[in-house]
Parts: sequence; C-alpha cells; structure tokens
Amino acid sequence: MNILWVFTHPESRSLNGSLRDAAVTHLTSSGHTVEQSDLYRMGWNPVVDAADYGHDSTRRLHVDTASSDALRNGTLAADIADEHKKLRQADAVVLQFPLWWFSMPAILKGWVDRVFIEGFGYGIRRDTGGTRRYGDGLMAGKRALIVTSMGGSEHTVSERGINGSLDELLFPIQHGLFWYTGMSVLPPVLVPSADRITAEGYVEAESLLHRRLDSMFTDAPVPFRQQNGGDYDERFVLRPEISAGESGVRVHSSLPGA
Amino acid sequence: MNILWVFTHPESRSLNGSLRDAAVTHLTSSGHTVEQSDLYRMGWNPVVDAADYGHDSTRRLHVDTASSDALRNGTLAADIADEHKKLRQADAVVLQFPLWWFSMPAILKGWVDRVFIEGFGYGIRRDTGGTRRYGDGLMAGKRALIVTSMGGSEHTVSERGINGSLDELLFPIQHGLFWYTGMSVLPPVLVPSADRITAEGYVEAESLLHRRLDSMFTDAPVPFRQQNGGDYDERFVLRPEISAGESGVRVHSSLPGA
Repeated sequence: MNILWVFTHPESRSLNGSLRDAAVTHLTSSGHTVEQSDLYRMGWNPVVDAADYGHDSTRRLHVDTASSDALRNGTLAADIADEHKKLRQADAVVLQFPLWWFSMPAILKGWVDRVFIEGFGYGIRRDTGGTRRYGDGLMAGKRALIVTSMGGSEHTVSERGINGSLDELLFPIQHGLFWYTGMSVLPPVLVPSADRITAEGYVEAESLLHRRLDSMFTDAPVPFRQQNGGDYDERFVLRPEISAGESGVRVHSSLPGA
Repeated sequence: MNILWVFTHPESRSLNGSLRDAAVTHLTSSGHTVEQSDLYRMGWNPVVDAADYGHDSTRRLHVDTASSDALRNGTLAADIADEHKKLRQADAVVLQFPLWWFSMPAILKGWVDRVFIEGFGYGIRRDTGGTRRYGDGLMAGKRALIVTSMGGSEHTVSERGINGSLDELLFPIQHGLFWYTGMSVLPPVLVPSADRITAEGYVEAESLLHRRLDSMFTDAPVPFRQQNGGDYDERFVLRPEISAGESGVRVHSSLPGA
C-alpha cells in the first residue's frame, strides 16, 4: 500500500523523529511504499495567501472561490499541487505531530489550510444534489491516522481529565478534516508524558506504533455517522431519535453507548 | 482599558476586516485604547524554530527549555518579545479569525505557538508548589474573547449539529489557551453563514459585536473550574462527586446543569 507520512517536528533528533524513522523502516520492510512530507525539512509555507492562486491583489480575495478557480485552471502554487498528487496516490495518510496547545503545530495547520481547498477538500458536489462531505469526498477509500505526543500524562486527557478527552481535542481533525473529506479514521496513537519518557518507555511506544501500523488497513475505523446516511436532518442536525437526549462529540459516532 | 486585538484575515476588504475596523472605531470612541496585531499585515512568521531562541543548531532542540532559556536571557526573537509586551499591557485580548477547518488559521496558531512559550504561557511555578495553570498564570486578570466567522449555518455548530458544538470546537482555545494561561473567558461571538450574509445581516452582526464589546468587562465569564480549586484530584482528573457520572467538555465548567 502507499502511505503518505506527514511529519511535523522542528528537530529530527526528537522522540517524534525517532518514531518516524523507525515507522518508515518498519512499513517499508513490510512491503509498503512510504511517501513523506517532512514539513520543517521542506520549509513548508503555512500561510494561505492570494499568491497561492495567482490572484490579482487589486481585487478582493475570496479564499474559497480563488482557490477552486486556481485548482480548475491549473494555476495553483506548485507546492500545493505536489501535495495533492501525494494525497491522490495514498491509500493511507498519517499525520504525526507533537500536540501544541492541544492542537496541530502551525506548520501542519497550514498544510491543512493550503492543501484542502475548495474543490479538493470541500465543496465537492454530488451528482444527486447536495455535497460530498462527512464520510464522502475526494479522500473516500483512504485511511487516516494521527500519531501524537504530549508532555502531560494520559490521565489529563482521559474522559474527565482537565485538558478534555483526547477524542474531544482531536475531534476537529479526526471528524472535521479526515471524516469530512471522506477518509476512514483510525483511533489515534498517543505518546503521553513524552518529556519524561524512559528508554523502556520509548521501546514500548515504538512497539505500540508498529502494531497499530500493522493493522491499519484491517482495524475497524471510528464509526462516525455519514452526513448523507439519514441520521442528520436537512439542517445537518442529528435527528432527535438518534442518541436521543444526548450531546457531545460522541453522538456523531455510532459506537455502542454513544 | 487596553485591548489587544489580534486580527487574522488575508483580505482587509473582507467581512472580518469590516467588523474589525468598526470595532476598533467603536472601542476607541468609547474611551478604550486598542493595540492591534494584524498578523497578515505584519507578515507574522508562524513557525516555531530554533532561530527564535538563538539556539545552537548543532545541539538537539528541546522547544520548551530552549524557549524558556531565551526568555530568561533576553535572547528571544524580537517579534515574540513585542507580542509579550502587548499582552502584558492588555486588559483584554480579542482573537478575531475565520474558522478554517474548525480551528484557527495557521498564522494565528503560529502566533499562539511562538508567543505562549514556557515561562510565559506555561510552566509557571507557584510559590506554594505546583503550577499556575487553568485559572491562574501570567495572564490572570485579563479578559479574552473570540470573534469568529464561518461559512456554515449556526445549526451545524449547535449542540447536536454535524460539525460539533461551537463550545466543543473552541474548547482547545477557550479552555486550553485562554483559561490555561489564567484569562477570564467570555462566550465567543460567532458570525455564521458568512459567505451568504446580506447587508442587513452585516449590520446585525456589527451591532451584536459592539454590544458584546460594551459589556466585555462586566459580563460574567465562563465559569471554568480552577486547576488548584479542589475539583480535580492529584492526577488532574475531575473528582467523582463533581458532575458525577458525566463527561464531555461541559464538566469543566460549573454552569448550572453541567
């Protein structure tokens, strides 16, 4: 299979760098092909800007239409077009990053902002009317995985941990990006207490990651609900009989008990 | 009062640009002083990098210690030091941005990543032991407000809307950044369906924003729970008797019914 590994860390000699190197070796020796986007090494520009679209700066910029026009006309910045090509060829996408302020580092957020433009990431019309979104889109058929590290302990992102649960913190990425664009979402791999990890802890983390990679094409994805599957009404609000009386991010998946 | 207005949009002739201009005029004519960080206009660099800290790149970079060392030694990049000065002088901080992929645009995320470093945004020790965090920190006493726009309708970010509720989507910022660093958090101002706004709709949005700004120093903030207030145990997990049996981001505030 083809795997696109998006790596985000300013220091390749970091915990994340070691995990990435070992994972790429592991995947390759398992017969997969790994394409990398090492954002710091690439000097990735994270800032959405009129220049990406060959837009005439004397006219007001509408990011959505300017970007979809550029995509259609082939005038999109070359670095974005390269990432589109990598994504189209991928069977799975891995985003690896340290959790900074409970979210992606800016350079990775800017990979998302600049790459997932209208006509590629959103605004894809269905032949039958409406929009391909949440469970459908150009990324349908691909698998997606977050690999992340944090300084705090696992308790702090548990269901009642002070930072909010990991599912809630990653919901904008897992549901709002991966699932939105049609990808099948795997539960994230978290390396907690990363600043205090021991040699044994590192070996365990690497081993856990390799096991998760071994089963990434066979594991059951998170059962997020399809936008066009009947669970949402015409305003895109969950119908009252689905997870009746409940709220919170978990109602958007059909896990038992949710 | 002194207000720091952090503006994030690539186009000053946008809905967001108009709202910003009107708000700054409104605040100034109400007797406030407004300091702006217009990130696109400033050409803000959003990428955390060894160069920010005068770090010797032959040695492994640890972002947390390198940044706190640079802060202590006065070797921090000048643009970061400038933002620290603005933040220290502010009585309130407004972050204005279009919601891109259910989060901050990368340039704003990089303002957070580069400015809120160890020793300024986190890792502040208490005299009595432990850490100043969640309701306490260098930003204590300041108020914080998000002003954001989105293309989708308000229904889509309602309690059971397909995108997840606005409270959940903004939790990493409202709770994970503002409250974490000690700020008192005001409920966000949202301009939904921004791509389809009418002239009347714009007038309403501007008027709503001005009303919210008029009461920003008197409105009751979101009653998030203090880390050191007794509601969390020594692992920073909510004690079982607090919001017993419940989970989700709402358990971290003491709103009635939460």
